[in-house]
Amino acid sequence: MKDTVILAYSGGLDTSVAIPWLAERGYDVVALAADLGANLDLKAIQEKALKVGAVRSYVVDARERFAEEYILPALRANALYEGVYPLSAALSRPLIADLLVAVAHAEQAKFVAHGCTGKGNDQVRFDVAIAAMDPSLTVIAPVREWGFSRDEEIAYAEAHQVPIPVTRSSPYSIDVNLWGRSAEGGAIEDPSQPVPEDAYAWTVAPERCPDTPTRIRIGFEAGRPVSLDGERLPLVELIERLNRIAGQNGVGRLDLVENRLVGIKSREVYEAPAAVTLITAHRALEQLVLTRDVAHLKWSLEPRYAELAYNGLWHSPARQALEAFMKVATQNNTGEVQVALYRGQVRVEGRTSPVSLYAPELATYGTHDLFDHRAAKGFVDLWGLPIRTRARVEPLAQVDLSALNISVMER
Amino acid sequence: MKDTVILAYSGGLDTSVAIPWLAERGYDVVALAADLGANLDLKAIQEKALKVGAVRSYVVDARERFAEEYILPALRANALYEGVYPLSAALSRPLIADLLVAVAHAEQAKFVAHGCTGKGNDQVRFDVAIAAMDPSLTVIAPVREWGFSRDEEIAYAEAHQVPIPVTRSSPYSIDVNLWGRSAEGGAIEDPSQPVPEDAYAWTVAPERCPDTPTRIRIGFEAGRPVSLDGERLPLVELIERLNRIAGQNGVGRLDLVENRLVGIKSREVYEAPAAVTLITAHRALEQLVLTRDVAHLKWSLEPRYAELAYNGLWHSPARQALEAFMKVATQNNTGEVQVALYRGQVRVEGRTSPVSLYAPELATYGTHDLFDHRAAKGFVDLWGLPIRTRARVEPLAQVDLSALNISVMER
Amino acid sequence: MKDTVILAYSGGLDTSVAIPWLAERGYDVVALAADLGANLDLKAIQEKALKVGAVRSYVVDARERFAEEYILPALRANALYEGVYPLSAALSRPLIADLLVAVAHAEQAKFVAHGCTGKGNDQVRFDVAIAAMDPSLTVIAPVREWGFSRDEEIAYAEAHQVPIPVTRSSPYSIDVNLWGRSAEGGAIEDPSQPVPEDAYAWTVAPERCPDTPTRIRIGFEAGRPVSLDGERLPLVELIERLNRIAGQNGVGRLDLVENRLVGIKSREVYEAPAAVTLITAHRALEQLVLTRDVAHLKWSLEPRYAELAYNGLWHSPARQALEAFMKVATQNNTGEVQVALYRGQVRVEGRTSPVSLYAPELATYGTHDLFDHRAAKGFVDLWGLPIRTRARVEPLAQVDLSALNISVMER
Amino acid sequence: MKDTVILAYSGGLDTSVAIPWLAERGYDVVALAADLGANLDLKAIQEKALKVGAVRSYVVDARERFAEEYILPALRANALYEGVYPLSAALSRPLIADLLVAVAHAEQAKFVAHGCTGKGNDQVRFDVAIAAMDPSLTVIAPVREWGFSRDEEIAYAEAHQVPIPVTRSSPYSIDVNLWGRSAEGGAIEDPSQPVPEDAYAWTVAPERCPDTPTRIRIGFEAGRPVSLDGERLPLVELIERLNRIAGQNGVGRLDLVENRLVGIKSREVYEAPAAVTLITAHRALEQLVLTRDVAHLKWSLEPRYAELAYNGLWHSPARQALEAFMKVATQNNTGEVQVALYRGQVRVEGRTSPVSLYAPELATYGTHDLFDHRAAKGFVDLWGLPIRTRARVEPLAQVDLSALNISVMER
Repeated sequence: MKDTVILAYSGGLDTSVAIPWLAERGYDVVALAADLGANLDLKAIQEKALKVGAVRSYVVDARERFAEEYILPALRANALYEGVYPLSAALSRPLIADLLVAVAHAEQAKFVAHGCTGKGNDQVRFDVAIAAMDPSLTVIAPVREWGFSRDEEIAYAEAHQVPIPVTRSSPYSIDVNLWGRSAEGGAIEDPSQPVPEDAYAWTVAPERCPDTPTRIRIGFEAGRPVSLDGERLPLVELIERLNRIAGQNGVGRLDLVENRLVGIKSREVYEAPAAVTLITAHRALEQLVLTRDVAHLKWSLEPRYAELAYNGLWHSPARQALEAFMKVATQNNTGEVQVALYRGQVRVEGRTSPVSLYAPELATYGTHDLFDHRAAKGFVDLWGLPIRTRARVEPLAQVDLSALNISVMER
Repeated sequence: MKDTVILAYSGGLDTSVAIPWLAERGYDVVALAADLGANLDLKAIQEKALKVGAVRSYVVDARERFAEEYILPALRANALYEGVYPLSAALSRPLIADLLVAVAHAEQAKFVAHGCTGKGNDQVRFDVAIAAMDPSLTVIAPVREWGFSRDEEIAYAEAHQVPIPVTRSSPYSIDVNLWGRSAEGGAIEDPSQPVPEDAYAWTVAPERCPDTPTRIRIGFEAGRPVSLDGERLPLVELIERLNRIAGQNGVGRLDLVENRLVGIKSREVYEAPAAVTLITAHRALEQLVLTRDVAHLKWSLEPRYAELAYNGLWHSPARQALEAFMKVATQNNTGEVQVALYRGQVRVEGRTSPVSLYAPELATYGTHDLFDHRAAKGFVDLWGLPIRTRARVEPLAQVDLSALNISVMER
Repeated sequence: MKDTVILAYSGGLDTSVAIPWLAERGYDVVALAADLGANLDLKAIQEKALKVGAVRSYVVDARERFAEEYILPALRANALYEGVYPLSAALSRPLIADLLVAVAHAEQAKFVAHGCTGKGNDQVRFDVAIAAMDPSLTVIAPVREWGFSRDEEIAYAEAHQVPIPVTRSSPYSIDVNLWGRSAEGGAIEDPSQPVPEDAYAWTVAPERCPDTPTRIRIGFEAGRPVSLDGERLPLVELIERLNRIAGQNGVGRLDLVENRLVGIKSREVYEAPAAVTLITAHRALEQLVLTRDVAHLKWSLEPRYAELAYNGLWHSPARQALEAFMKVATQNNTGEVQVALYRGQVRVEGRTSPVSLYAPELATYGTHDLFDHRAAKGFVDLWGLPIRTRARVEPLAQVDLSALNISVMER
Repeated sequence: MKDTVILAYSGGLDTSVAIPWLAERGYDVVALAADLGANLDLKAIQEKALKVGAVRSYVVDARERFAEEYILPALRANALYEGVYPLSAALSRPLIADLLVAVAHAEQAKFVAHGCTGKGNDQVRFDVAIAAMDPSLTVIAPVREWGFSRDEEIAYAEAHQVPIPVTRSSPYSIDVNLWGRSAEGGAIEDPSQPVPEDAYAWTVAPERCPDTPTRIRIGFEAGRPVSLDGERLPLVELIERLNRIAGQNGVGRLDLVENRLVGIKSREVYEAPAAVTLITAHRALEQLVLTRDVAHLKWSLEPRYAELAYNGLWHSPARQALEAFMKVATQNNTGEVQVALYRGQVRVEGRTSPVSLYAPELATYGTHDLFDHRAAKGFVDLWGLPIRTRARVEPLAQVDLSALNISVMER
């Protein structure tokens, strides 16, 4: 009896070639395609898998799960790898891995497979997430193993009746889901040059955007975006709408030379209209509702959260513990943020919250000032006491006035 | 014989009233105004101090010192308080304090004074910096002490021949120097509302900017900006030019509800065209030249650096030690960054460096790939080993497929 | 009708004098003493409060609450301020504050009071915890306000029939509860000198301890100590027993020059036999059960947790969010640790856990090695790739062999 | 003409077998042994290399360089991996690598070799340090490659006239240098059991130590230990003496289940009498001379420094930048610390410094108190203001008094 392998299947050339390649090695190949909001023709993908040799072909609608279990925790953490990348592809990999493992169990398979190369981050995300869910499974990564050149791959495809795309739709390597679109390769690989306009698909170039801003209000409850302009929306739909609206205003273009886990730098182009808009609005809300102590601590931990997700450690105890931190830290992130979307920018124009910590009667310089100015002197004295004490034992070098251009006038 | 007090003098109402107020308390008042690039009529300010009662009036051109000793270290650290504010006022306070102390020594004075209120950060910055430079000096803060209402202050001014500005030039409280312009108070105090357009002075509203981008190249050497479009410039001039060019394109508007050291939130508006442009470009260069280890560590320390400067701890051992860190960390930040300034945005369009760590032959997906794909498998296996080991002792919960919408097709 | 004030009452001179002092200012004083495991004669304290003028006198047994709600979270976080102090007094203050507020509500009082001075940390812990629980209450701190010298205080006490301790039981200022004993003042104030032996009360000097180790096994479940030598014990009793056993072996003496929140350094002496033993054992268990990712992250956050507790921010969102982190991070801290207590030291001699991540078949250098040595090469190559890439663009200075003493021998 | 390979040679079985193994593969083997303070018979090692087939044999006295360039920076950073391990072996690897590279250049060799296995940290430290110094060199790791079992290795040794140690001097794998001694393998591999006494060589068991403490004074200048009991000593000699004195008192035994970089946990036993004594003393001095701001920041960065050294990233920009930080941060670490060494413990008994920040007149509770108690109220009010503001918008749950055991007494 043959061994079964569950293959993460995208319908593209690499995973399509992987089916006969695995079949040749004696496996029954079960294809699994997940709908993560990329608006693909999944029916066609499902059929194609069977056509090129899969024995069974799954399509899973995982959009809601993706939004609730992967995107939302990342948004609470304002997760941006290296301050820029909202982790769209990175968040999707553990989800697909989790589905592979669940289907492997359903199919009593001992093998799972994915189409990642050996130089990217995605192989790490798949391999580690699969090991986290079931360390007894064996992972096969055909593309990492077969060593085909592009020409050899096409020859192999032709020999095995795998359809070759007549025209490459894009000179770039593309990944798409609800949370963003990534492009790499081709002309993007030269970081000294602007991103070619044809690398973008979701966003209008700022120079060609509408010349008046689009204003929207985004409502949050405990860090979760719940409404647009007052209309409550499921998370998936809210993100989809924002991708459209913000994309039309050129928002969400990201150009990053990033450090991959495998030790190289690569230049990546992302489009993430909804992610950029939501994170910007969420941060603006945090300015209003977080005390300084938790704000500074949370903001210092966000890069660590993003790094764990980027580096394939989604299912790590560290990320789980940080998720618990973020959940408590954002429990008051409730309110509404008004943003103007205009030619590539998200401009925050107003934030309100029922649990706002902005206290006008303390902050004002006007006549209703309730701040106790006398407290300040005591505060400053103690705040500076260590520096004062140190200055007594070791004076700092004083400014040399003779080195400056000084004018003195007497009465 | 009278005691002498050195007063940090701006020419505004508060510090002008402080002169007779201090004189009434028995001091000879020496006024000190520093030129930090605000383009004020310093001659007039110098004369005004004498007219309202100062015995002597200093004007110090501290622009170059400000740029070299305060702005440049902050730029190397990409210092932004709470991720937004480039610290323009915060950086200037320790410099003015240092000048106060140096003049106090020159004048053999035991007292120094500043015009800060009791609810802001500036009092902390002055008091602590003065204590750091000379803990034997006594600081007087008339505005914090006198308890005048606005009307009482004006009455006092009139009674002491201090000229009252006929029309308030701005409904806001303004601070200006080379590194930025701050506005607070008035209508800005309502964070639910957009910033009133009249709060801005240095920047054109994005909607009214030129409709083609202005492209410039900024050259850096070891973290120091040295040239614009290939022309080497002194730091002061480079910043001034950038303020103009970027401001014309609406770049550098910042709207922040921030946490003051004294425990309150306040809504602040900043304009920092040069600062925002330079920090954006500097970060883009860092993507190219920093190894991941130092990049992630440096970026995690930058908020701490900004916080120390914001909180009045410029002259602290912590900031000094971080400055040493930043200097070594940025020693390779050499290269050129091309940016497009367009309707409020700085868009990085290219970065080059003689010490770039971007290795096309490793990064490419093309035919010249030198990356060792076989190394990846070993890397991933060991990277994920702890997670795999943990999965053996404690399995994670598996995805419940029955809760998902799944379609299965058989061959 | 008189206002009521609820006073945190210890039975000592300061809080006893505070009762008539508050009464003179027109308050009905309600005394509140909490049993936190200090083994005091609480009946006597309760009566004394009435004798010196309180209208009502509460004693609350808060030992279990202290252990469960304050000590246990701190233990999970291995909380040691500045790496040394287990926070015994610091943890108790918010608990007492919480009780003050609850009694104030029960008594419909608008005022609460505590006996802290103006130069310690405890005033901050009380004031802030009270504000966190009910910001409408007014806090009175008689000792901070009255400005008595020691002699004046005694005169006031005599004049108001407050009993003066005939002999000071200790030349030191002492605080005691279940989690430790603190001493400060007197000869302790000279950090150039050893701690005087009479500053210690719970621990035997190492030189006079039994000359064989006492060995015990401590069982943990999810970070909670649950058993001693296999016997399951309530937390309060387990800590009490450990204080005794470890104290007899000289364990838990701590001598620290610490940074107080109010800006000064003070030399403090702590005895914390149970705390030191439990934290040592807990850390040893963590070595076995935590993956590196969560271990390094948790350990880096522990000082921050301790700092928040030390600085009076127990009821802050930051500490609450960190507590959530710590709870998830320690959910696998289950197992048993054997320690030898010997002349001042806790020596870990063995750790076992059902969820141990120590994998002998991976770690061994013996014949059952299952580690894949070939994976290592790939791992090392990619791990070092950024450094290798950087070396290509900027070589490091090489060792100058001529500066070293070298001998060369030829075959 | 043959290629030359420079081999890091220890005289042990592995590196001795590596010589004929490399020679068989066509290399001229140049052996390099470094004296790092292990007190070995280096003459004999040098001759042995030639005897088993090396063409040339270097011995380099690198003790002073090791102390000055590797140990001292680590000591300034109080570097302890996972809070325990002073990095003795970890610090030596980049030094040996640097020597390999320098000799390779002197010998115009293109190959270097080391004797590390594939499952330890040392291979990473060698490979990465060599790449950092000269990325054009090729590293050969015979032990990682040859795949010999123990028996096969001995057979190979016999066949190639490599002397086999008649009796294994130790059942453990041992590494020794000035900064410590490491043991692993054998009975140590069971973390549930105490360390076997025969795993120790430098330290007396606490139970068999002298029964009176040995007291010594250690002098520091800017973080560098310069004297013992007032006698100025070169660093190497000071460390050697401390290893002896502290070892005789059982100080420096460390038992750690640690996380290796390659993803496994291993149980390691270290003896580091000088390192433990010096780090303990250095930390005690820091309590006296560092302001809180730099102390807390430095202490939070120390684990990161240790991790970089442990993980083979000695020659990384991150470690270099941290070294700059540590150097500035410790510039005031000058003074003397008295410690008592007693049966396994280092007890700090006194610290003095000309730049001490401990201010008795501020800290004292006695009659010379200069602390401004009135300042405290203002400080506390502003410190707690954010918590107070938050309590207004979201009250915390109050203590339920009915759940506690309370006694109330009326007057």
